[in-house]
Amino acid sequence: MQTNFQKRDRYGMYTRGHGGPGPALMGADTLMGNDVFNRDGESLGDIKELMIDMASGRVAYAVLSFGGVLGLGDKLFAVPWAALALDTVNQRFTLGVPKALLKDAPGFDKGHWPEMADKAWARSLHEFYGTTEPIA
Amino acid sequence: MQTNFQKRDRYGMYTRGHGGPGPALMGADTLMGNDVFNRDGESLGDIKELMIDMASGRVAYAVLSFGGVLGLGDKLFAVPWAALALDTVNQRFTLGVPKALLKDAPGFDKGHWPEMADKAWARSLHEFYGTTEPIA
Repeated sequence: MQTNFQKRDRYGMYTRGHGGPGPALMGADTLMGNDVFNRDGESLGDIKELMIDMASGRVAYAVLSFGGVLGLGDKLFAVPWAALALDTVNQRFTLGVPKALLKDAPGFDKGHWPEMADKAWARSLHEFYGTTEPIA
Repeated sequence: MQTNFQKRDRYGMYTRGHGGPGPALMGADTLMGNDVFNRDGESLGDIKELMIDMASGRVAYAVLSFGGVLGLGDKLFAVPWAALALDTVNQRFTLGVPKALLKDAPGFDKGHWPEMADKAWARSLHEFYGTTEPIA
C-alpha cells in the first residue's frame, strides 16, 4: 500500500526531537497499510488490521493481504503477532516465513472470518507459523 | 466522532451469521474514533489511537480526546487499556473514572508525546487511573 507509520502519523507521535512513544510503543492506526517483507527482501503484502484480544489487551493477530510475490491478493490471512518483527530502518514489517510455506497459509475471505476466539483454530494457526500462544 | 466498530468494519469481520472474531477479538482499525462514555452515560470523547507495546504485543494505552463534557478537545490523553471496557450494546467504550478526577488527567499536546517507554511515566499514569501495569 506504499505507506508506513511515519506517513500515517496524524498526531505527531514520531516527531523528532522528543522522546515520544516509538519504537517501543507504536500507534496501531499508523501501522495499517504498512508493508510486510520476507527475509529475502521480497514484498509479501501489507497489514490490513490488528486483531486485539479484548480481555488480555494483546494484539493476537495481524490480518495481512499477500498480494506481493505470492499473488494472493483476494484473501486475508491472520498471522500471529509474534511472527512479525518491526523493521524500523525500512519502516515496514518482516515476516520470517519462507515463501514456499506461506503458499499453504490458511486464509479466509472478506465477510467470512474465522471464529478467532476458538481454541482449536488458534492452536492450528500457531502451529502453522511456529509461534507460541501467548498466555493471557 | 459518531462512528463505531460496526460502521468502520471494512472487511466484514462483524458480519452476522458467521462466528467471526468479535466481540472477543476486535479489529484495532474499527475501534478508531469510537466514542468513550462514563458510567453516568455522559460522552467523554473518542479514541484517537491505540498504543501497542511492540515487544509484548499488548495495547498499553488508548489515546483519547476528551472533547465531551470535559471540554478538553485540544489535548490528548493516554489511558491504560485496563481502564476501558467495551460496551457491545451501545457500540462504544466505558471509562469508569469520575468526571471530577478526569479534569486532572495528565494530557499532552499533538507533536509533544510523552516518552511512553519511560517506567516512571507509566507508573504515575497507572497510579492516576488506579490500574495495574501489565506484566510483559
